[in-house]
Formats: sequence, structure tokens, C-alpha cells
Amino acid sequence: MLCIFAELFLCLQKRKTMANLPGIPKGTRDFSPEVSAKRNYIFDTVKNIYKQFGYKQIETPAMENLSVLTGKYGDEGDKLLFKILNSGNFLKKISDKELSERNTGKITKLISEKGLRYDLTVPFARYVVQHQNDITFPFKRFQIQPVWRADRPQKGRYREFYQCDADIVGSDSLINELEIVQMIDKVFSKLNLKVTVKINNRKLLAALAERTDYVDKFTEMTVAIDKLDKIGHEKVLGELQNIGFSEEALKIIEPVLQINGNYDEQMQYIKEHLGETESGKKGIQEIEKLFAYLNLFDFKNKVELDISLARGLNYYTGAIFEVVSDEVQIGSVCGGGRYDDLTGVFGLKDVSGVGISFGADRIYDVLEYLNRFPENIMASVKIMFVNFGEKEEAYCLPFLNKIRENGIAAELYPEPAKMKKQMKYANANNIPFVALAGENEIKEKKLTLKNMQTGNQELLSIDEIIRQLKNA
Amino acid sequence: MLCIFAELFLCLQKRKTMANLPGIPKGTRDFSPEVSAKRNYIFDTVKNIYKQFGYKQIETPAMENLSVLTGKYGDEGDKLLFKILNSGNFLKKISDKELSERNTGKITKLISEKGLRYDLTVPFARYVVQHQNDITFPFKRFQIQPVWRADRPQKGRYREFYQCDADIVGSDSLINELEIVQMIDKVFSKLNLKVTVKINNRKLLAALAERTDYVDKFTEMTVAIDKLDKIGHEKVLGELQNIGFSEEALKIIEPVLQINGNYDEQMQYIKEHLGETESGKKGIQEIEKLFAYLNLFDFKNKVELDISLARGLNYYTGAIFEVVSDEVQIGSVCGGGRYDDLTGVFGLKDVSGVGISFGADRIYDVLEYLNRFPENIMASVKIMFVNFGEKEEAYCLPFLNKIRENGIAAELYPEPAKMKKQMKYANANNIPFVALAGENEIKEKKLTLKNMQTGNQELLSIDEIIRQLKNA
Repeated sequence: MLCIFAELFLCLQKRKTMANLPGIPKGTRDFSPEVSAKRNYIFDTVKNIYKQFGYKQIETPAMENLSVLTGKYGDEGDKLLFKILNSGNFLKKISDKELSERNTGKITKLISEKGLRYDLTVPFARYVVQHQNDITFPFKRFQIQPVWRADRPQKGRYREFYQCDADIVGSDSLINELEIVQMIDKVFSKLNLKVTVKINNRKLLAALAERTDYVDKFTEMTVAIDKLDKIGHEKVLGELQNIGFSEEALKIIEPVLQINGNYDEQMQYIKEHLGETESGKKGIQEIEKLFAYLNLFDFKNKVELDISLARGLNYYTGAIFEVVSDEVQIGSVCGGGRYDDLTGVFGLKDVSGVGISFGADRIYDVLEYLNRFPENIMASVKIMFVNFGEKEEAYCLPFLNKIRENGIAAELYPEPAKMKKQMKYANANNIPFVALAGENEIKEKKLTLKNMQTGNQELLSIDEIIRQLKNA
Repeated sequence: MLCIFAELFLCLQKRKTMANLPGIPKGTRDFSPEVSAKRNYIFDTVKNIYKQFGYKQIETPAMENLSVLTGKYGDEGDKLLFKILNSGNFLKKISDKELSERNTGKITKLISEKGLRYDLTVPFARYVVQHQNDITFPFKRFQIQPVWRADRPQKGRYREFYQCDADIVGSDSLINELEIVQMIDKVFSKLNLKVTVKINNRKLLAALAERTDYVDKFTEMTVAIDKLDKIGHEKVLGELQNIGFSEEALKIIEPVLQINGNYDEQMQYIKEHLGETESGKKGIQEIEKLFAYLNLFDFKNKVELDISLARGLNYYTGAIFEVVSDEVQIGSVCGGGRYDDLTGVFGLKDVSGVGISFGADRIYDVLEYLNRFPENIMASVKIMFVNFGEKEEAYCLPFLNKIRENGIAAELYPEPAKMKKQMKYANANNIPFVALAGENEIKEKKLTLKNMQTGNQELLSIDEIIRQLKNA
């Protein structure tokens, strides 16, 4: 009994201590060395493929003027913008009357002029317009930076997360679409993941709106169809009915939602039912051309037409892409599409472009779940010198330097701590080899190299050690 | 006359257009592909050396709780924190009376709970305390992330800028100081810049305060001495007098400010004048031990004792470092030091550490001024295929893919634009080779490779081209 109380007491003590620890804002994360290394593995893979295809990195500021951000993400998006309080006496522009009215919307505008970027697309559009005279079009850029959303945090949804976008603007050639599919295929092959790339064209959805005579409800229709994977086709039909689609219209839409055939079967259906509309004609032409390009290549992943694919974002106007894992059910891990007018809102008309974005957090979860991160992702340090004291330090330091000069990451434990503590450090940091130097080694002008995995020890010269580490 | 008016009109028109372009918040920057590539060159160089010495990357959120940030940077610093407006009805916690009083300090606390990180040191201290149970000490971390300060923007001072910090905590061995000097030396050699690493020990300044009997004015004294390079020794003495230092005290301090000898001369002076004090004894011991380590190595840059070096930051308690360019007068390009108690403010006592920070923006300016960025830093794409139309596209696409499969970045101009436009694109993007394929090339199953610099053209097989690109 006493024992239980003692434990309870200790537990409460511990909780109290824990509660006193400083914390971070909800929905944000610290990334430890291990998690950072794993995230960099994803970012570097994506970055290398982007570069291989001629996309160039840009960076934009975390803060944008609210005039740039507001109104671009709908009312819901505006609410989710993190706003920066003006510096100094931020109340000076507000009258007593305005203050007492407590209209937060109005007051927000008076006390805040800047916000944190919500995505990378709007800042990119702003960048293109602002620097249009310095840019040679077509402009292929990639951008890997964090974005911030004041969303309610939940599993897999964060208030700060990275986006990895690539876009080409100033070209409407479908070669760009082909290359996007190639990039997706190469990124996921490099990451050792199996995915399916689903492709559709927004013009086919426009054709559906045209054919059913609901052109005015096009956006609402795509938003409803976009939920297909989550809520199933019956509920999508229900939503469409609620929006005002007639029974007759639903009869035309339903088979599209349920379509389940290969490329030829889908195209045949499309041609029969939507081929007569203006949008349908254009969409069919674009899809056929893109798939002709795609057929020139063997992909490591499945690449499929899916005419029920909608994508929520309403600035897409042509090809759309969505990538799902074949191995884990987790939603889309990459998506994108073509837009005819991204920069119009900032005054630059007729800049067509196409882009994609990799979902680094979901890709991370898939790799973690499948245990597909490369082994030894953390083992950047190849060797640690054990510290036995002043004399041994002086003996080891030049060897340590020589190893580093050979481009090999290496460490000397900084003080002559107990052997057990030093070994614990080597293990905790996944260091595969340790070097030991005592009297005998100093006499022989050599070092004992210990393989931490096998436990094997060898007396070797520094050159032999360097050779072995280079091959390890 | 008319002409001048016409020009004036055009100029005004242009300014009007310019004025309509969207912009970014003052003190922030967009980084173009070229500037990003140059910045990455600096970051990657620093990162690789950090890794070679066993420092591991972490990342912390851009937003921290204001309870973590406030009070850590002095009153002036608190004013320079960018604060995030609470989401939703941010006025709900404020009474009508509080609102009408317009006390911005009080109201700020009620409408804002988060701020943007001001440096990487405080978030790192918070990280160490928060995750102390998961960390194996000594803990060597590096962190390369932006920080934000609501400073008045001016030349070379930005409201968003990157810091590149490395720290080791949980070890008071002077080997860490040695390795910091080694890292500095290696980073600047890699960057092809000549610098001087100035070293001092805060304990000698403490000895000066002890010796003059102004221990209570230690911080103010170091702040004054820190201005030595900017305002000269006479003005520093004037400031010390204003703070309250006696004539007698100034006579002891003055020779230290003017000291101008080598290591031995400085040490002799120190031993004679400060050797009797408690702090002096410890400081001399630490300096001698550190320089004994340093003497084991040849450095590419000058490494000097400078007992007039102070460093403004008052959490330093041991060795301090400052690095200045030998080639450009621009202030310090790197700095750091040892602190005995970084994490105490978050409740974890006795964690000694030492760290440095590279000033990426200043290093950028020095490299740019001296024209020392590597040539072809932008030439990541090695070859562009000219687009002559559908048939040629289909012929080129598999070759393009093969080049990329060999790890070489390559592009096909996405549409059959005019030759001049395509060449302009290749030039603007510093692409060193273009590949051309017309009827003859298709017949021969080869490509014409044009060297953009020499203008030379050769008819080659794809394998020959890949070989040539790999060697280029």
C-alpha cells in the first residue's frame, strides 16, 4: 500500500515537472535530428528530380502583405490566415467608437497589415507579376518552404507544414504535363514507393456542366465530385441534388462517377456522351495528346485516366493530377494541375501554367509505416574517437583531422568520461565505428578500430582506417 | 520640348504601372533562382562542415509561445518581436474598460499569444529543456532557419534573415572550442575567403571588472568595450566614464583596449595585471589550454588572441569568437562563444555549452563583392533540346529521358517557338549546350550538339553526348 502511494507521489511529481517544461504552440512541431534527416531525405529527393527537369529554386518571405493574401482562399481561408500585429502603437488608427463597436473584422484590418503565407501558389503568382520584367518565360520554378494555417490541429493536420511545389508558367505545351508525370514517377521510384498517378482534364467536367446545362454551377459541382473518394458516389449525388441539379442531370453525371474501365473504355464513353460540347472537344483533344506523349515511356508506377477525378481547387482549367499510394490508404500524396490564369488577380493576364505539389508529411508517414527510409539515414558520423585523457587526445586529434580532410564525418568524445557513457553516446548517435588509442596504439603509431555492430577490433594505421571507412 | 513631355509622360505611365505591381513587406526579400543558388552554396558549405564535425540538424517552429520569447532579449528585443494575432474573436478577453484605456502593452498580451522566432538560440534552449529526456548529452546540433525582427530596415539589415547556428551543450571541454575554430577555418577556406579568427575569454573581462572593483558594472562595461571597432578607444573610455568608472579604473582598462601585440605579449600583460584575480586565473588557464590545442594544427586563416574583444551578448561566460574578413571591411562574418547557463531560464540548470553562428547575408555580400562565387553556380541544367515541332519532339523525348537517367539535368524547350526565343531562354538560364535534331539527325539516329560558349557544333550519338556532358 505504502509502495503504491509512493509511486503515485512520484508520478504526480513527475507530471508536475513535465507540466513545467516549456512548450510550443499547438499544431506546430520540433524536428529532432532523426526526423530532420528523414524529412531532408524526402525534400532532397524531390529537389533533385525538380532540378533534373530544369526547375529552379526561388524563395519568398514568410510574411506577405494581407492585401496579397486576402480573398484568394475563400472566406474560410481568410479566417485561417495567421495575421501579424502591427508594430508600435497598433491602436492609433482606431477611433474610440470603432473600438467600442468590437467589430473584429474591421479592427483586424486596422491593426494588422501582414500575414503568414498560406500556400506557395499565391506568393508565386505575386512573385511572377512583381518580377515579370526580370523573368525569361517559360519560367520553371520550384519552392520548398513552410506554410501556416490556423486550422484546428488534428492527426496529420498541422498549423505549420512544408509544401514542395514546382510550376512552369508561360507555356501551354502538354510536354509540361508529360514531364510532371515523369517527375512524379521518378520521385516515387527513388523513394521506393508504389503509387498510382490519376489524370483527368477539368474541361471534361466543364463539358459535364455544359451537357447538363448547369454551367453556372460548375465550381459547386467539382467541389461535390471531389468528395467522391471520401463519401462515395451516392452521397455526392445527394449533394448535387441539394445544390439544385435535376434528376435528368444526375442521370448524366452518375455513370461518370461510377466509371470503372481502362483508358479506351473511358474515352469511348466520354466521346459518346460529352464529345459534342465545346469543352468536351477540347478536353478530349488534350487528353489524347497527353496520353500519346505518355505512351512513349515506360513508367514504374501506374498512370491512369480517371474521368471522375475533380480536385477541389477551382483555379484548375486543364489537366489535373492526383497521386495515391498503392500500399497505404492515406489520401493523396501529390497533386496538381493546369491553370489558365493564375496571375490575373495581380494584373497580369493570360499566363498559363501547370504545377504540382508533393505532400511531404503524408509521404513521411507512408515511408515510416512501411519502414522504407534508407538504413543508416542517421549515420552521418562514421567514426568516434574514444577519449582516454589528455595524452591520448593529443595523439588522436591529428588523425581525427585527417579523417575529416578525407570528407568523412568524425568525432572525438569531448572529455575523458567513463567508457560506458562514451559508448552510449556512440550508440545513441548510430556511429558505426569507434577508434581507441592507449599506450600500445601510441607505441605502434596505430589505432584500434572497433566495429560497433560486430564487436570486431583491429589494430590499423590511419590510412587503413580511412580506406575502410570510405568503403563502409 | 514635345519629346521631353512625351518622355515624362511615358515615365509617369511606367511609374504608375510599377506602382500597381504587388509588393512584399518592407525589410523582406524574394530570392530569385540565381540568388537562391548562391545562398544555397553558402548554406551547403556551412552545413557540410557542421556535419563533418558531428553536428546534427534540428528544426523548430517559426512561431513560439510569447512566454518563451518575451524577456529574453531585453526591453528593446521585446519590442522587436513580431506578434501573431490570436485567431477568432481576439477581443473576447478584453473588458470595455481595458479597451478604452488603450494600454497597448496590456492589450497586446490579451490579443496575442504567439510570436515569430527572434533568433535560434532561445528556441534551441527551449528545445533542450523540453526534450531533455530524449537527448543524449553532449548534444551537438545545428540549425539553419530564418528569424524575424521588427527592426527599422536599412542597408544590410532585414526583417527576415537566416541564421546558421551550431552549438554543443552538456560538455565544458575546450576541445569543443578547438573544433569551433577548426570549423570556422574550414568553412572560410571552402568559400575561398581569407579571414581572421579573433579569440578572447570573457573571464579576462570579468577580471578587469574585478581588478577595477566594478564587478557590478560588468555587463555595461562589456557593452561599451564591444563598440571598440566601431567608435574607437577614446569614445569607449568616455562611455565607461559616463557609466561611472573612475579615472583610476580607466587607467587600468585603457592599455587593454590599446593592446597590440602577439599572443605572448598579450598574455604577459594579462598575467602581470589580471593574474591575481579569481576570474583572471581561470581565464588565463582556459586560454592557455585552448591555444595549446590550436597549436597542434596549421590553419589556413589567421587565429589570434585579442583581449580587447568583448561581444555584446551577455550570456557568454568563457571563450568568445569573432571572425572578420581580411579582404573587405564589413564587420563580423561569424561569431560565438561559451555560456555556462543557457537553459536556466527554462528551469534546467548547469548546462554549459558553446556555439557559433555564421552571418550568411554578410558572407554573401563579401563573396559577391569579391566575385568569388563559383562560376556556373546557376548552370545546373547541362543541355537544352531545341524544339522544332511534333515529329522532332517525339524523336528527342527518349534521348532527353536517357540523359536524365544518367543524373544530368536537361530540358526540352516546351514548344516549337522561334529559334531566337529558344536560344534566348538557353542563354538566360546559363545552359552550356543545346541539342538540335532535324531531318538529317533523325536519319543518322544522332543529334547535333552545340557548345553555347564556343559555338562549335558536332553530330554525335546519344552515348557520345552523355559522355561529353559528364566530363563538362
